[in-house]
Order: sequence, then C-alpha cells, then structure tokens
Amino acid sequence: MNVGLIGLGLIGGSLGLALRAAGLATRVVGYDRSAADLKLAVERGAIDRAAGSAAEAVADADLVVLATPVLAMQGLLAELAPVLKPGAVVTDLASTKAAVTGWAAEAGITFVGGHPMAGSEKSGMAAARLNLLRGAVYIITASPDTPVSAVDLVERLARGIGARPLRMAPEAHDRAVAAVSHVPFLASTAIVRVTTHAEEWDGWAPIASTGYRDATRLASGDPAMYRDICLTNGAAIAPMLRDLAQELERIAAGLEDRGLLDELFTDARDRRDAWVQGQGSFRLP
Amino acid sequence: MNVGLIGLGLIGGSLGLALRAAGLATRVVGYDRSAADLKLAVERGAIDRAAGSAAEAVADADLVVLATPVLAMQGLLAELAPVLKPGAVVTDLASTKAAVTGWAAEAGITFVGGHPMAGSEKSGMAAARLNLLRGAVYIITASPDTPVSAVDLVERLARGIGARPLRMAPEAHDRAVAAVSHVPFLASTAIVRVTTHAEEWDGWAPIASTGYRDATRLASGDPAMYRDICLTNGAAIAPMLRDLAQELERIAAGLEDRGLLDELFTDARDRRDAWVQGQGSFRLP
Repeated sequence: MNVGLIGLGLIGGSLGLALRAAGLATRVVGYDRSAADLKLAVERGAIDRAAGSAAEAVADADLVVLATPVLAMQGLLAELAPVLKPGAVVTDLASTKAAVTGWAAEAGITFVGGHPMAGSEKSGMAAARLNLLRGAVYIITASPDTPVSAVDLVERLARGIGARPLRMAPEAHDRAVAAVSHVPFLASTAIVRVTTHAEEWDGWAPIASTGYRDATRLASGDPAMYRDICLTNGAAIAPMLRDLAQELERIAAGLEDRGLLDELFTDARDRRDAWVQGQGSFRLP
Repeated sequence: MNVGLIGLGLIGGSLGLALRAAGLATRVVGYDRSAADLKLAVERGAIDRAAGSAAEAVADADLVVLATPVLAMQGLLAELAPVLKPGAVVTDLASTKAAVTGWAAEAGITFVGGHPMAGSEKSGMAAARLNLLRGAVYIITASPDTPVSAVDLVERLARGIGARPLRMAPEAHDRAVAAVSHVPFLASTAIVRVTTHAEEWDGWAPIASTGYRDATRLASGDPAMYRDICLTNGAAIAPMLRDLAQELERIAAGLEDRGLLDELFTDARDRRDAWVQGQGSFRLP
C-alpha cells in the first residue's frame, strides 16, 4: 500500500513516524507547505520521499491522509479529487468531522474521517513523536454510503500504529469533542483572558500556581487550529458554552447558599473521580 | 518557642512535619477533632504531643497556628481568646483572609494571617508531606495595627520551612486568590457539571483525555474546603465569575467570527505563555 501524507505537523508527522516504523506502507510520499517541516520529515523518517505539491504526493497513493488544519481541507479535497488513483481512499486527522465529511461528498471522494485523540501544546514536525498516537482512542467516522472496505482500511491503519479505533457518526463525534475538548479549551482561554486583563494581574501572577497552570493549560494550544475547530463546529459548541456560562451565573448567585455549594461541589468531585477511575478501562464498542 | 497547632489535615500536618524537621519550635502540641488524624500526627512526628482539646493545645503556646477549615475559625478564635498566654500570636493557614482577620479583631487576638500557596486534591494527615510547602509562596497578611514583631514572627516561620513570604493586605489577598484559584476551581466544577450531566456523557467519557483531565483537575478538590472559601470570599469571587460567564457568552456569539477568534486565542496563548515563562522567577517584594 502506498500512502500520501499531506501535512507534516505534530499529528501528521507523528502518524508518519508510526506507520513507517510499523511497516504498514510500501512507500509514504509526503507534502507540507512549510519547506522546513517537509525537510525535517524526511530527515526524521516520517516520510520516504518529499513531493513538490499535494497533487504529486497523492498521485500513486492507495490511501491519502490529510493532516492539515480543517479549513484547508475544503480546497484540498476539491484540488485532489481529479488526480486521485481510482479506488483511492482519503482519510483525515482533523478535530471536527461533519464539515470535512460534507466537503468530501461534494468532491465525490471515498472518504473516511479519522480523529486520533492525542495532542500537545506544541506544534510542528519538530514536536512529532513516534508514540504520540499509541494507546490513544482513534475515532473513525463514516457516512451510511461509505464502502465497508474503506472503513476497514482506516481501522487497520489505526490498529497498526497501536491506537484504539472507535466508530461514531460524524455529528455524534462533533458533539463529543465539543464537550470534552473544545468547551474546556474555550473555558481555559476565557479564564486567562479575564484574569490577565485585570488591573491587578501583575500582583496576582506570582501567586498563581499549579491549579491555575492546569486549569489554563489548554489555552496555550495552537490558535489557528482552535479557530478552525470553532469555525467548523460552532453548532455543537455554542449551546454547551451557553450552558457553561449559565452554570457559572448560577454559582455566582449561590455563593452564600451553603446547601447548594455542598451539593454542586460534591456532585462534580464524585463525577470527575468516577471518570478518572474509569479512564483507560472503558470498553470500546 | 512553643507552638500550638490546631488542625492536622494536609496543610497543618505538612507544616508540623516541616517546622519540627527545621527545629523551629521547642515543642509542638497539636489537636484535631479527628482522633485518627491526631494519632497519625504523633506517629509521623508532625507534633510532639497530642492535646485533648484546642484550649489545652494552646495553653503554653507562644505561637498558635490554626489549620482548620475557615468557617471553624470564628468559633475557635472566640473559644481560645480567654485561654491564650499573654503575648501569644495567632496565625492561620486558610485560603481566605478578610473574614478571619475580622473575627480575630472581634476576639481581641493578636493575629497575622498566613496562606501558603500549596495544596493537593488529597486531604487529611495521611496526605501530609514534609516538603509540601517548601518553595511555595506564603502570603502573610496583617491589619494596620498589627505589631511588627508578630508579623516578623510569622515571616520567620514561613522562611524557616523554606517557603517564600509575600506580604499583602487581607482584601488584596482575597481578590488575588479568587482570580488564580477560586474562579478556576468553579470553572472546572462547572465544566464537569455540564458535561457529565449531558445525556450523551456515557459515549463521551471514553473520548475525554488529558485536556479534559487537566481542565477539570481542580473539581476533584475537597468540597467542604471550597464551600467555606465561597462562603467567606463571595464578594471577590462573584464579579469575576460573572466576567467569565460574559466572556463565554461573547465567544459563543462569535464562533463564526474568524478575526475575533484569532485575536482571542492568540492573546490568551501569549499571555499564558508569558506567565509560564515568568513562573518561579517573579521577584517578590
């Protein structure tokens, strides 16, 4: 199997390292707009060969993996549709799935969505790691008319690099990641905004410690990636963000209500602890 | 110097271990309502002797350290005032300072507030560690009429256990910790509430990963401690919580506004990264 890999940042680069180490591909031809990342991908062995364009990278590919920011994929899918090999399957590694699934359908491409649930605050090929995706849940989404063989191919890729495939519908995926990833990022970002813009911040900064650090870690994520996520997943994110704002207003109004505070804090602690206990042991269907 | 230590949980126990290891006290007499924590404090060497009551623990003390939940301190200060040795200084280790400072003044006690900025999701004497407070910022608060000798005594205690004393007014302290600790806790708690109460949570739980884990870590904190914090620091917390809710509403309304998202996310990332860079190197006045 020949693989075309477009986008050699943190996730694309790590996938390249893993699939070449696992011997899953006869040849991996890669492309990235950044000449530095492309060069580094060859040097680090994430790809066998650097192509001069996305079209060249996919010319001989049985499986095409798109690892670019989500919004770049609309144009990329339209551009690649006419040059794909007959029978080629296209997959991606982006954080939202409904939009890209729709664009692929418009372009008439056999497409299976993929989303390995792993990341880092760092970005770029230099941050890529062989084991970044190992053990991670790897969500695989398909439309009702996607051929089973295409879904199986992407599932074999996921298993081959040591990830744990989990099938979902694109829209269910988008709600799930809005809840467990996008809304926490936005809350983290909002915390940083309201605290660091306060007049007294310079006096507060030395006091902020591990709690502040953890609660705001996601805010250090790549702004362009999260912008694309919001632009393609607003429908799922907006209502949850408003629920969160309402819950905060409710707490603000109840700060003298001992019974309410006991109930809210005990409930949240117990539910989070139950999730932590279960983590890693969830049975994937 | 004889020390009376009331409350042998995570912070009180850790302070006892540290001050005895540093040889700062001639004798540390301790008391805790929990017979198990009191026994363990003797066994682990956090105190020299267990007293049968709070009054007995402070009878011969030059310095009294209160390490109970904040709300217990009002009654405790009133109870101890008549039995303190003349010239005794009382300090505490609680998370809010204005309320307890007021109660001490009402009881006619020479009081210096203290707040070592360290913690853990764990609680109780079993979780206490010799080095928990080492290197931590240790906020010291005093009223304008507090004797300098009392402030110096508490500052020596802080330095003696390897912490970094930082003087602030009680109200400034309360706003600072509302921003860097209480509001992040409440945001973390609200995230857990809105996600885990959603109908689809069972499908989302296996997908939640390190980002969700970090963003919600504070929600696993001790509910009783945070309840007391909210009950004594609502004035500082409420307006910041409402600012946070408004920022979330603003983002929810702007999820299709590319320029706004770029601006917000880049700003938050840059400001957080600047804080992370500066951490540990802040000059304390």
